[in-house]
Amino acid sequence: IQTKLPKVGTTIFTVMSQLAQEHGAVNLGQGFPDFPVPPRLVEELERAMRAGHNQYAPMTGVPALRQAIAAKTARVYGHAPDADTEVTVTSGATEAIFNAIHAVVRAGDEVVVLDPCYDCYEPAIDLAGARAVHVPLDPVTFAPDWQRVREAIGPRTRMLMINSPHNPSGAMLSADDMRELAAILDGTGIFLVSDEVYEHIVFDGARHESVLRHPALRERAFVVSSFGKTYHCTGWKIGYCIAPPALGTEFRKVHQYNVFSTFTPGQHAFAAMLEAEPEHYEQLGAFYQAKRDRFRDQLATTRLAPLPVPGGYFQLVDYSAVSDLDDAAFCRWLTVEKGVAAIPLSPFYETPPAGQRLARLCFAKNEATLDAAIERLQRL
Amino acid sequence: IQTKLPKVGTTIFTVMSQLAQEHGAVNLGQGFPDFPVPPRLVEELERAMRAGHNQYAPMTGVPALRQAIAAKTARVYGHAPDADTEVTVTSGATEAIFNAIHAVVRAGDEVVVLDPCYDCYEPAIDLAGARAVHVPLDPVTFAPDWQRVREAIGPRTRMLMINSPHNPSGAMLSADDMRELAAILDGTGIFLVSDEVYEHIVFDGARHESVLRHPALRERAFVVSSFGKTYHCTGWKIGYCIAPPALGTEFRKVHQYNVFSTFTPGQHAFAAMLEAEPEHYEQLGAFYQAKRDRFRDQLATTRLAPLPVPGGYFQLVDYSAVSDLDDAAFCRWLTVEKGVAAIPLSPFYETPPAGQRLARLCFAKNEATLDAAIERLQRL
Ligand SMILES: CSCCC(=O)C(=O)O
Ligand SMILES: CSCCC(=O)C(=O)O
Repeated sequence: IQTKLPKVGTTIFTVMSQLAQEHGAVNLGQGFPDFPVPPRLVEELERAMRAGHNQYAPMTGVPALRQAIAAKTARVYGHAPDADTEVTVTSGATEAIFNAIHAVVRAGDEVVVLDPCYDCYEPAIDLAGARAVHVPLDPVTFAPDWQRVREAIGPRTRMLMINSPHNPSGAMLSADDMRELAAILDGTGIFLVSDEVYEHIVFDGARHESVLRHPALRERAFVVSSFGKTYHCTGWKIGYCIAPPALGTEFRKVHQYNVFSTFTPGQHAFAAMLEAEPEHYEQLGAFYQAKRDRFRDQLATTRLAPLPVPGGYFQLVDYSAVSDLDDAAFCRWLTVEKGVAAIPLSPFYETPPAGQRLARLCFAKNEATLDAAIERLQRL
Repeated sequence: IQTKLPKVGTTIFTVMSQLAQEHGAVNLGQGFPDFPVPPRLVEELERAMRAGHNQYAPMTGVPALRQAIAAKTARVYGHAPDADTEVTVTSGATEAIFNAIHAVVRAGDEVVVLDPCYDCYEPAIDLAGARAVHVPLDPVTFAPDWQRVREAIGPRTRMLMINSPHNPSGAMLSADDMRELAAILDGTGIFLVSDEVYEHIVFDGARHESVLRHPALRERAFVVSSFGKTYHCTGWKIGYCIAPPALGTEFRKVHQYNVFSTFTPGQHAFAAMLEAEPEHYEQLGAFYQAKRDRFRDQLATTRLAPLPVPGGYFQLVDYSAVSDLDDAAFCRWLTVEKGVAAIPLSPFYETPPAGQRLARLCFAKNEATLDAAIERLQRL
């Protein structure tokens, strides 16, 4: 069989998780927490199953959940999407991103992505018969160079994809970035995908500039988020897309024939949880900031140099004091020989910056896990 | 926005379920049971959550579940797929069908489907940039005319899709059908998708002719099934695809960037369940046969004429003694005016047979539900 996706191998997250397991490494690679789901959420899911909510959910999502998402969005971002036409529940953010692309991107189109970017964007673009156009972020600050974005846009550009807080760097787009972006897109027919799965994990009093705060952007945007990162349950695979009705209609056509509907008891559980414990996501930034700070202090006792982390749950470290290996080789060596799994940045790029010596460590872990990792990293 | 899917509206299942709800109709439309999930399955899911299985499952599925699926397949069909390379867990059968199409079908290809067929096939084919070529099944027996299938195949044919037991008719493919099909596909590069979600719901001592029993077919096939129909939990959305390694590799590339992974606690629950209670699916045919027989006897007291139902959980009825309306109008009238929701067959066809007067009733319901429906149907 001649493959349709020649560039695609096994995703780096799977590769490193497997390697970590084989070699008994502390796994700071793939982004997932190792602490429990909020107890109430488990109870709500059990309650929903036992109440008999086990058959197909409505294709667009359980109404109570769509309403809870709309209410939360209004509370947090001052914009209330219409639960009936603008909110669609999906089987995780990855499905939402895939659907958004397939909803509007056509064969021959171009989609602008900002490198480094999450590795699911380009294969979905390729499957739609389109082409990803890669614009590098600043190699130090991971801020966009909007002039380069402007230059990358042409008559075939159909979509632009942004991600804030950013994976892998944690960089956040500012209100100024949003204005620049709005100016670039003004008068074009270009759609926006805004991947905001780390929306509640922001630090140092910063404000997350959701696209939903910006009318000129949200009118053309598929805003994607998920409960996996917010509720410590990356394996539950419930996410959502907020988009204006005309975009939502096209999005739902794809969702309807892709996955059709999402795990029903989980939708009821999140509906209950969002209403009952808003303090959960309100305190999430502080919760992770404490982890970030502690981990950064510990890294000071190693030869790895931490970069600033404005949001998300990944710490980038510069390892050039330790090794001359490229990042893929370094992360492999770190996992196999030193017992700490990390993620290299090169798979997030079309063309990784020459000589970049960065690795990504996930600090969404128990103190014991991070302590064990630090002990090993101190031996570098 | 110019839509990519001009033919797609809201799926008939959603339309009829909503109409049923609005008008307080007994819902025999969308296919889902109204009785409980096996208690052990709920307990296993709870156990998995409480044991902390809440983070990303491996992209291909939890190993214990893939092994359990392989073992069950060996037990039931005498063919043991390799759990590592040939079994992939998906977020329901719909996702598996979508992935299989996107894995190998390219722009400009043709995919042969047998009408009436499930309404998710064609939009997925369209999104891949390909074209569905519709071959009608016999309007009375719903058997394939293999000569017509042969004639529909041309140089652009990339895939053929079959479904047994068949939705909406319940018709089953025979061992002879499998031989005919193998002869047609022999020497071609045509792939097969075999949708077998009703595999355990077969009646009157018949044997389900899984493609997995037939080496000449399974070497080119994506065999799709799901736990939703077998375990009375259509809303849990866990299915799987069995395909030879070369096909599995391409399938997984799509799955990896479409949904990535499936609800982790549910996978653990099914792994436990498949091993612990094989009698569940072994007795499923008898369980539903009793429902079918009772419902058919009751229909004899109405002016609806039941067709034979070899498998699945749908009863087709000929309503020509009651009404001259076309099937869409009849099902709407039946729901709104008579209080019983049914599914018309025309949405399952490119060109519905002229004058066909059939409606689909789901008998996967409690006796009380079916009794209430019959009472209303007696008034026709
Ligand atoms: C889908 S596996 C990757 C999880 C994640 O978001 C990450 O590690 O970047
Ligand atoms: C995906 S909703 C439809 C459920 C079903 O299989 C049917 O009713 O045919």
